[in-house]
Amino acid sequence: MQPKALAMAVSGAAAGLMLAAGTVQAQETFEWKLVTSWPKNFPGVGQGPERLSTLVEEMSDGRLTIEVFGAGQLVPGFEVFDAVAEGTAEMGHSASYYWKGKAPAAQFFAAVPFGMNAQEMNAWLHYGGGLELWNELYEPFGVNVMAAGASGVQMGGWFNKEINSVDDLDGLKMRMPGLGGEVMSRMGVAIVTMPGGEIFTSLQSGAIDATEWIGPYNDLAFGLHQAADYYYYPGWHEPTVMFEALINQEAWTSLPDDLQAILRTAVRDVNADVLDEYTARNNDALQTLLEEHDVELRRLPDDVLTQAKEHSEAVVTELAESSDMAGKIHESYRAFQDKVVNYHAISEQAYYNARNPEGGPTTAE
Amino acid sequence: MQPKALAMAVSGAAAGLMLAAGTVQAQETFEWKLVTSWPKNFPGVGQGPERLSTLVEEMSDGRLTIEVFGAGQLVPGFEVFDAVAEGTAEMGHSASYYWKGKAPAAQFFAAVPFGMNAQEMNAWLHYGGGLELWNELYEPFGVNVMAAGASGVQMGGWFNKEINSVDDLDGLKMRMPGLGGEVMSRMGVAIVTMPGGEIFTSLQSGAIDATEWIGPYNDLAFGLHQAADYYYYPGWHEPTVMFEALINQEAWTSLPDDLQAILRTAVRDVNADVLDEYTARNNDALQTLLEEHDVELRRLPDDVLTQAKEHSEAVVTELAESSDMAGKIHESYRAFQDKVVNYHAISEQAYYNARNPEGGPTTAE
Repeated sequence: MQPKALAMAVSGAAAGLMLAAGTVQAQETFEWKLVTSWPKNFPGVGQGPERLSTLVEEMSDGRLTIEVFGAGQLVPGFEVFDAVAEGTAEMGHSASYYWKGKAPAAQFFAAVPFGMNAQEMNAWLHYGGGLELWNELYEPFGVNVMAAGASGVQMGGWFNKEINSVDDLDGLKMRMPGLGGEVMSRMGVAIVTMPGGEIFTSLQSGAIDATEWIGPYNDLAFGLHQAADYYYYPGWHEPTVMFEALINQEAWTSLPDDLQAILRTAVRDVNADVLDEYTARNNDALQTLLEEHDVELRRLPDDVLTQAKEHSEAVVTELAESSDMAGKIHESYRAFQDKVVNYHAISEQAYYNARNPEGGPTTAE
Repeated sequence: MQPKALAMAVSGAAAGLMLAAGTVQAQETFEWKLVTSWPKNFPGVGQGPERLSTLVEEMSDGRLTIEVFGAGQLVPGFEVFDAVAEGTAEMGHSASYYWKGKAPAAQFFAAVPFGMNAQEMNAWLHYGGGLELWNELYEPFGVNVMAAGASGVQMGGWFNKEINSVDDLDGLKMRMPGLGGEVMSRMGVAIVTMPGGEIFTSLQSGAIDATEWIGPYNDLAFGLHQAADYYYYPGWHEPTVMFEALINQEAWTSLPDDLQAILRTAVRDVNADVLDEYTARNNDALQTLLEEHDVELRRLPDDVLTQAKEHSEAVVTELAESSDMAGKIHESYRAFQDKVVNYHAISEQAYYNARNPEGGPTTAE
């Protein structure tokens, strides 16, 4: 063999090695789609999936990329679960109460009236068996799930008149989805369902008298203060909403261990980060609503809160009785809540009340 | 050249390539040490660095490994900051109030009497400029810092007699470090400092009359109920302790971008996870203390809380006046707290009080 032939042979061997390395590289690169139930780049919750995409790309050095689609860009916002189950998108970002038609028990993982707040939900999910139950519930659909953001305690809602007692609720037309809406209907409210995009117009036209949405940060962006004067607290119906990251089971299994770890940890980061953003931004928005838009801030009357609590108990119990799985989830949820309420009574609650004994908001700064 | 020679040549070329790949691999592999201020595998806070080590190794596929050392294994618990600054260890896990001798303002990032709780601190650090200030404070030492766990609202302390008014504090010998101890000293308490390991014996022998530690989960493990009967709440002096991950600046800079992202995200996961564990475990420990060990659970009297709040205000203001940097941090901290207290009054606080209007703990289940 001549030197040239040798060079070619060596070159060929090197190319073979590089090709092999290239093949390994190709096997390890994943381009995923993530569909959401929020408008693209929506404040707060809509930032979660964007952050997830950035973190995963940085950590994997580009081996896993996730393209984020707003509601309606690839699939409608309420079809996120189906899209992930069918593999149209590898991931979704949404809230589990939207899937109550498929699995009523899913509501336990989003928001329970008079249930657990964000800190408590996270403890239940990660140290109380909650996340395992959530995955057990979605497993038949071929979907994995992780907690991916929390709103914190929401607001009680916007009303076009003052509510001074339960009697003032009678006959009111209100948009409030989920378990909270069911509770309100038992207190004489006519519950109306409609997509988020119709809320403002319906409230302004008088087609509805009241609505809940999220909290000051999102409500201000939505312009709800232009359609109703009275802003009530607290959001007993949604002590937090937990948002969810959905992952197609086959897509998940296809990831090597390190990318699974990267994705899982990125979701956990986002889960905390969304709450941090809401906690930081809500008060500024509240001050804008009060000072620039003359919104009337009111606490819901005691009898409304007391009766709402009683009806909530009944509504949640009925949900628990709707299936074996709902009963199993409720048992775990309730046992954990009883314990954490007991401890938070002497820690978080007692501390809030020691720091701000008057309760209620201080005057605008 | 004969086929054998060719084979050797090709083999040599392949070995060269593999060596090159091996060199790249070697450049990208990092074996770090992490020193902590806690006993190895301590419940709660001590689990944080262990989890960090696991997550980072999984996500980096072994390119970054972190060996965790308990207090005293490599350096004493109170020398963690120096060890990281000097590069004895690349990382540390601790709490910033231990470094008040180097930088009094560090105390703002650990625990402020009547200051912000865990949810609020996380919002300030990640969306209110807090983390940038924390890094500015440590920058002269060559140390980077991230939040790496929270205890939640702590307990008020163990006392060997009932406290029915401020008068009962007079002359009491108590172990309470930091700003809270300074507040207590202004209320007539003789503050004693001692390492954690001496607390139990000192309390049992009567060398001290009272102590604070962390909360039921850690206090039970420490056996404090065997040395004092009365367990007081809430922990006004520590509405949370934020724990910290310290990283030697040069070590951090040596990491490629993807490993920096992996480490940063893993710390953020740990930051949330430690709080989740405390939130989940504290009530079980409390029930054990109450039911099996007959501990007397009491709320601190109103006058103690009211006076502690007034003295706290003065102590924190004095700290703020101690240096320009302390003043700058205090200004940011205080502005954020004023806002978040205002919003939490109508959200988290109002919700806790609507859900559990009686306040205080429910009876043991």
